[in-house]
Amino acid sequence: MPVRQGRYTLMLPSAPGIAGYAAVVGKKEGQGPLGREFDYVYEDAMAGEKSWEKAESVLHRDAVSRAIAKAGISPQDADIIFAGDLLNQCMGTTFGIRELGIPFAGLYGACSTMALSLAAAAVCVDARIAETAVASTSSHFCSAEKQFRMPLEYGGQRTPTAQWTATASGAAVITKDEAKVRAEKILIGRICDYGIKDPNNMGAAMAPAACRTIADFLNDTNTVPEDYDMILTGDLGSVGSQLLCELMIKQEKIDIASVHEDCGLLLYDMTKQKDVGAGGSGCGCSGAVLCSHILKRIENGELKRVLFVGTGALLSSVSPLQSETIPSIAHAVLISGG
Amino acid sequence: MPVRQGRYTLMLPSAPGIAGYAAVVGKKEGQGPLGREFDYVYEDAMAGEKSWEKAESVLHRDAVSRAIAKAGISPQDADIIFAGDLLNQCMGTTFGIRELGIPFAGLYGACSTMALSLAAAAVCVDARIAETAVASTSSHFCSAEKQFRMPLEYGGQRTPTAQWTATASGAAVITKDEAKVRAEKILIGRICDYGIKDPNNMGAAMAPAACRTIADFLNDTNTVPEDYDMILTGDLGSVGSQLLCELMIKQEKIDIASVHEDCGLLLYDMTKQKDVGAGGSGCGCSGAVLCSHILKRIENGELKRVLFVGTGALLSSVSPLQSETIPSIAHAVLISGG
Repeated sequence: MPVRQGRYTLMLPSAPGIAGYAAVVGKKEGQGPLGREFDYVYEDAMAGEKSWEKAESVLHRDAVSRAIAKAGISPQDADIIFAGDLLNQCMGTTFGIRELGIPFAGLYGACSTMALSLAAAAVCVDARIAETAVASTSSHFCSAEKQFRMPLEYGGQRTPTAQWTATASGAAVITKDEAKVRAEKILIGRICDYGIKDPNNMGAAMAPAACRTIADFLNDTNTVPEDYDMILTGDLGSVGSQLLCELMIKQEKIDIASVHEDCGLLLYDMTKQKDVGAGGSGCGCSGAVLCSHILKRIENGELKRVLFVGTGALLSSVSPLQSETIPSIAHAVLISGG
Repeated sequence: MPVRQGRYTLMLPSAPGIAGYAAVVGKKEGQGPLGREFDYVYEDAMAGEKSWEKAESVLHRDAVSRAIAKAGISPQDADIIFAGDLLNQCMGTTFGIRELGIPFAGLYGACSTMALSLAAAAVCVDARIAETAVASTSSHFCSAEKQFRMPLEYGGQRTPTAQWTATASGAAVITKDEAKVRAEKILIGRICDYGIKDPNNMGAAMAPAACRTIADFLNDTNTVPEDYDMILTGDLGSVGSQLLCELMIKQEKIDIASVHEDCGLLLYDMTKQKDVGAGGSGCGCSGAVLCSHILKRIENGELKRVLFVGTGALLSSVSPLQSETIPSIAHAVLISGG
């Protein structure tokens, strides 16, 4: 039974276990520093399909299917799946998982979706709403560029603050059974809007949301950054990460720099893969980094307590054209091992 | 504490109360048979804003604010809001509620969103994850036409099976306190795809999902249609409603015709407002019909047990152009009074 701790945090006394997790990625992500840690690398951006959207659905279904198989269950055993993505009407998700026959609660949290879905799945299992809950998300560089920016063929230049949408999908299966990796606490964030208008600088738009969520979590749980092996944001990139650390000090008098990492900076080799600009982004970025590298490090004891903070920019493809600012949000899940 | 009943249904033993609800609509909806039951009718489709998307956000914020006020609380008292809409990246929702400062779990369920959000809010309160949870959704005829179909100025003809996206928003506030109207059971649906490809016939695409969800619910709870005063789908329209009743008999040997109603057929005067085609649709249609007419009838004792089945067509604006079929889903909430 979840228990509220402070104003915004929920403790999950049963600490639901992550029984299985998987991540599949595209070629560029496979060439990055985490390349060997993913379950599968799709060399073909189309994944054998006729459109990028359908390719994203293939990745999504693959990640979910692998996570379910690794948890030692079948799709029929899953009580619910929480999932979403960046595409209009979340088509990466709906077309990806439609054949699995799992009760489906569709989410929209932009790039915070891995944290939102994991939080929802964990709280459901802790509250015995479900015995087995799946959390998943995906993104695809080409489907996102096409939808949010320019036709790929146009070859437009990118600003240095722009992030690179990962071609990736991550999925995790939460059960009530004991496991080496567990979800201990969650926090559902509030929308933050600091007035940033540049859709090519989403790190700056999302940093205040991450700052608020981290501060709320530390405050609610009466802890300090040093109580965690890692505070992992996803995905602020280089610009947003620096802003976050500065904001935390200026607004909250909390220094997180020594434990802070960002999925957008972990996914690519920032010195060699220079075209990724300020780093990775997209729902699949934090989804794939968490559901491979990070959960593995928790599982093998390298990390004990990781505060995973998924960040999302809640703009639309239309809102910047209507001179709107970018509302953002961040959700947190405390994952522990050992 | 929610208790599973059968394979897909969750009983909510505390029967969380609907402490406040509100619906606001556009001019056409205000001229329909339920016109007097709404909290406010926006005569201006722009709601004083410069774009239809922003107008939808105004309606969304208004419905949520009114529901919260009618529940006798302030936004700061709400522990979580579950909300979403049809627009790309759910901008009607995010820009609508961003100033309220309520922890926000974004949903995407297409036109099933009112049922999905209500189910999530009710289960959260029953499981004591939240003391107060808000559920809301919205749609706007103009923003939806612009996004999914043709520019309004084009004045394209509509097929007779097409439905009319309602300009409307509905919101409900769920609390653990006793109330005249209560959520007793919920069911999160599975994706159904019967191979329908015509995006102008979404009733046909969604009817199988409604059929499956209703059959699952009746089976899980060992009840028959006559145990309910109303089985209320939202929004199948005339084509989908007829198909649903036929499918229920052919596939499930269950006759629901005597208790079946559809939000898409209740919102407009189907004999006088002929331009609505097969009836209303859009997240706001079932949102507004439920959060006015239906909940009022339950509150004043006219209806005792209503099985509300929100239906959603999980296509995107791109998927029909890629020759895709239309996956659909239906979620159910049993609402009772007296």
